[in-house]
Amino acid sequence: MPPLAGHPAAPRRGRPDYDQETVLRRAIDLFSRQGYHATSMGDLARELSLTKSSIYHHIRSKEDLLETALNEALDNLGAVLDRAEAHRTGSAYQKLCDAVEDSIEVLIAHLPSVTLLLRVQGISMVEQDALRRRRKIDDRLVTLVRAAAAEGALRDDLDPYLISRLLFGMVNSLAEWVRPNSRYDARQLTTAVATIVFDGLRAPGPGIG
Amino acid sequence: MPPLAGHPAAPRRGRPDYDQETVLRRAIDLFSRQGYHATSMGDLARELSLTKSSIYHHIRSKEDLLETALNEALDNLGAVLDRAEAHRTGSAYQKLCDAVEDSIEVLIAHLPSVTLLLRVQGISMVEQDALRRRRKIDDRLVTLVRAAAAEGALRDDLDPYLISRLLFGMVNSLAEWVRPNSRYDARQLTTAVATIVFDGLRAPGPGIG
Repeated sequence: MPPLAGHPAAPRRGRPDYDQETVLRRAIDLFSRQGYHATSMGDLARELSLTKSSIYHHIRSKEDLLETALNEALDNLGAVLDRAEAHRTGSAYQKLCDAVEDSIEVLIAHLPSVTLLLRVQGISMVEQDALRRRRKIDDRLVTLVRAAAAEGALRDDLDPYLISRLLFGMVNSLAEWVRPNSRYDARQLTTAVATIVFDGLRAPGPGIG
Repeated sequence: MPPLAGHPAAPRRGRPDYDQETVLRRAIDLFSRQGYHATSMGDLARELSLTKSSIYHHIRSKEDLLETALNEALDNLGAVLDRAEAHRTGSAYQKLCDAVEDSIEVLIAHLPSVTLLLRVQGISMVEQDALRRRRKIDDRLVTLVRAAAAEGALRDDLDPYLISRLLFGMVNSLAEWVRPNSRYDARQLTTAVATIVFDGLRAPGPGIG
């Protein structure tokens, strides 16, 4: 996002003084609550208690805000893969477990921007670019799953591509309902996802557990 | 949806003759591809090769189409629970397995309308009503999971509410990428989801498998 044109150093009468970060956070929150395409500049102005004419002192365009939010999500999710892949020791299975855990932490720490990313349907250039970057991340996740399967750590009766889609489908579904004041913290969510997908829900039978 | 006003019995010159079902299917497809709020009546007209003025002979409003689509998804997902609950024999665990399988079949058979439902964020009355109906379905799924856990069929170290959210989060994530011409059929997807969530991904160790 470019520097905010005409942003005053001190509050002016009748125009709340927002820094760039506050404007961005409030806008992303609103987009993630009611949908990017369903949110007008008028809605953003109301959210920020600005008039429709003064909002352009703070925001160049809705799409600028969207682009910043999507890049935030993509940069952080990309870093999850960088960290997993950089682990030189550790099995592929361990890297996959780390990536699952780390993805959930990023999703919770950057919830509104990850939520926006997961809902992108790709009409504009900004959305198309984000989808392209997201597909690259998805491909790297499939590669991690394939490596863990090749190592013999995962069951061999399921296609690694399908495993990856379903596993990270479950991780991403957290964005639909987890809220900052959720009754579950990141640790509980990570444990639940890892337990379900790696160990399964079925109660351990006699002689196994 | 009401009968289409002014719908001609035979094609008129320059105006494609669509039946109500075709208009609905093409509109839902378009909404699910590019998002309901991002789709204008002009986009719908283009999709149907109609002029902007003649589209109102076929469609009363975008919201009418949305309501019909959401009701289709909700009626079919509600019926999944009706069927599972009506099973008088069978354990709660079996009912849960049936509900997972049946949900995936409904999701695939009604993909565009279920996709729309899963993306509803609830700004309009129609969306708010759909969210209320969806929450009731989610509550019935939690009840099924609780019953299976109470029966001792599921591991007891995870909260049934959290299990339900994650399990059906994985099921619903299929709507994000499964397409009618997908390389996986309903049977393969159902098997993969059930295997992952009930048995787990970890390769069976020596002495267990």
